[in-house]
Amino acid sequence: MTAARRVRRAPAITVVRGRDCRMDRGVIVGYRPDRAVEDLRLTLGRGARLRSGTVIYAGTTIGQALQTGHGVIIREQNRLGDDVAIWSHSVVDYGCRIGDHVRIHTNCYIAQFTVIEDGAFLAPGVTIANDPHPGCPYSRDCMRGPTIKAGAQLGINVTVLPYVTIGRRTLVGAGAVVTRDLPDGVVAAGNPARVLRAITELECVTGLTDRPYHADGRAGPRLAAVPHPPRRS
Amino acid sequence: MTAARRVRRAPAITVVRGRDCRMDRGVIVGYRPDRAVEDLRLTLGRGARLRSGTVIYAGTTIGQALQTGHGVIIREQNRLGDDVAIWSHSVVDYGCRIGDHVRIHTNCYIAQFTVIEDGAFLAPGVTIANDPHPGCPYSRDCMRGPTIKAGAQLGINVTVLPYVTIGRRTLVGAGAVVTRDLPDGVVAAGNPARVLRAITELECVTGLTDRPYHADGRAGPRLAAVPHPPRRS
Amino acid sequence: MTAARRVRRAPAITVVRGRDCRMDRGVIVGYRPDRAVEDLRLTLGRGARLRSGTVIYAGTTIGQALQTGHGVIIREQNRLGDDVAIWSHSVVDYGCRIGDHVRIHTNCYIAQFTVIEDGAFLAPGVTIANDPHPGCPYSRDCMRGPTIKAGAQLGINVTVLPYVTIGRRTLVGAGAVVTRDLPDGVVAAGNPARVLRAITELECVTGLTDRPYHADGRAGPRLAAVPHPPRRS
Repeated sequence: MTAARRVRRAPAITVVRGRDCRMDRGVIVGYRPDRAVEDLRLTLGRGARLRSGTVIYAGTTIGQALQTGHGVIIREQNRLGDDVAIWSHSVVDYGCRIGDHVRIHTNCYIAQFTVIEDGAFLAPGVTIANDPHPGCPYSRDCMRGPTIKAGAQLGINVTVLPYVTIGRRTLVGAGAVVTRDLPDGVVAAGNPARVLRAITELECVTGLTDRPYHADGRAGPRLAAVPHPPRRS
Repeated sequence: MTAARRVRRAPAITVVRGRDCRMDRGVIVGYRPDRAVEDLRLTLGRGARLRSGTVIYAGTTIGQALQTGHGVIIREQNRLGDDVAIWSHSVVDYGCRIGDHVRIHTNCYIAQFTVIEDGAFLAPGVTIANDPHPGCPYSRDCMRGPTIKAGAQLGINVTVLPYVTIGRRTLVGAGAVVTRDLPDGVVAAGNPARVLRAITELECVTGLTDRPYHADGRAGPRLAAVPHPPRRS
Repeated sequence: MTAARRVRRAPAITVVRGRDCRMDRGVIVGYRPDRAVEDLRLTLGRGARLRSGTVIYAGTTIGQALQTGHGVIIREQNRLGDDVAIWSHSVVDYGCRIGDHVRIHTNCYIAQFTVIEDGAFLAPGVTIANDPHPGCPYSRDCMRGPTIKAGAQLGINVTVLPYVTIGRRTLVGAGAVVTRDLPDGVVAAGNPARVLRAITELECVTGLTDRPYHADGRAGPRLAAVPHPPRRS
């Protein structure tokens, strides 16, 4: 009779939360994934600020000072650094690695197994893929997200294909579709995205500075630790 | 005096729910549409799994084993088959017909009167239109979504225009804008989308198989019932 | 001891709500912005209809009869006219000016400092930018959204760059990337968007009318007040 009552016991979820976290009412931390995940601990560093509708799954590790907009979803088996901000309605699927000082703006989708390095910026609507041939019976074995190197800047509605690497401090123009690797320190745009010039050749549209990405220019904290790539000749 | 108190009585909403449905707290089933809808019954087949923030309107019929991510909206007068999955923040507007084993990934928008056949897959950010000339005074009379045939695969951020038909098992590349009909079994990409080759000509990028869409290849349950189109000569 | 207890007092939030507003349970009006905002009054005109998951920040002024879908976010320091509708999961960032009879459909992102004039229509997935060079240390000083003139119609998944002006009643085709100004009364499409013809030259695809945007055509209330631009020779 006791045997008949025995049920599969779901593994326990642990939430380890740092000091000074502020969460709006209704925010969910430690949501149970349906996938079988061995380690269901959620570690959320101190100083997090989570806005209404945010859901963070168990099995993920997040550094200090995470900020989320409303309706942000962060799945299991992710590893996020310090000072990451993810804005409203963006979704980070499982198994990603995201560095420090990363900004993921509104309505973005980050596919499983994507790597985003320190200081990268993803503008609203950036969408990332990880499956070269959806529907192929071998898809599960070859899914791999792109690698977005430190300080890269992706414009609004940029589409990034699997296996692609976007170089350090490279700027991808709005609406571009990135189908191949992009080197460090370039501007690329179009569908498919093509390299247009070095970022150091860009001119300021408003006259506030001579070159917005000049190698000697000031940089805010997000990019300060990401050195400019060497000037291409 | 009783006459003065008489108010328009809103038609009653009925929710018919199958066995073994699991819904997160705050999920709304049977939301009242503002449009005048004669039949306000919501039928939700057994085994549904609805995640937080999901809203399903009254007046819709859904088969077995629906899965939703967070923040999914399914409007009235839709008809969904069995084993449909719709991921976070996607919206199915009213009056659509969606077959069995369909996958609608994250941040998609399915316009009114769209038809999606069995086993089709829509990657994150797919957006579908139904109005050839928005703002035209006759728009209400000519709205019609596209038809996405069985087993078609739409890549991330694909845009589909009204009246278009996308063929069986056809693969639309990431970021494409589909402005005209696409035949069965082709690969198309670009803005506007152009046919590049037959899907059977695609090669595997990782060497796991010779051809990801080979007509003799294995297929998961989603595509098993959708035969390969005949090879084009 | 009392001094030790003294804390920074956050400025008070006031919500001024007109008659006949209907809000679903869980809707948040008067959400506190983290940015320092002097005037934290939220004015919401009468007859608003706010659906589940909607969040409206303090410090914004909204006219009569606002309609929102589910999960709509309207930030601080915005000014919206009468009869505006914003559909599910769309986000209006801070500091925008939006006229009367504007429609912002599903999954749109409206960047800070965008101007949208009367009767404009933004289809699902329209994404707007305001930062010509994200990551430039001077970005904060040069952010400026585009201006979308009265009666302009933006198709699904349209991407609009900063500083751009889209002309009156101009129609932007689905999936276009608007990188430069577009004049009044034209059809534009592509990446980058190019002018294709005058809107009065468009033909109806269904035969319901001879010209969907004929200067003498009927117009619904949304566009009635926006005169057709003069015919280009």
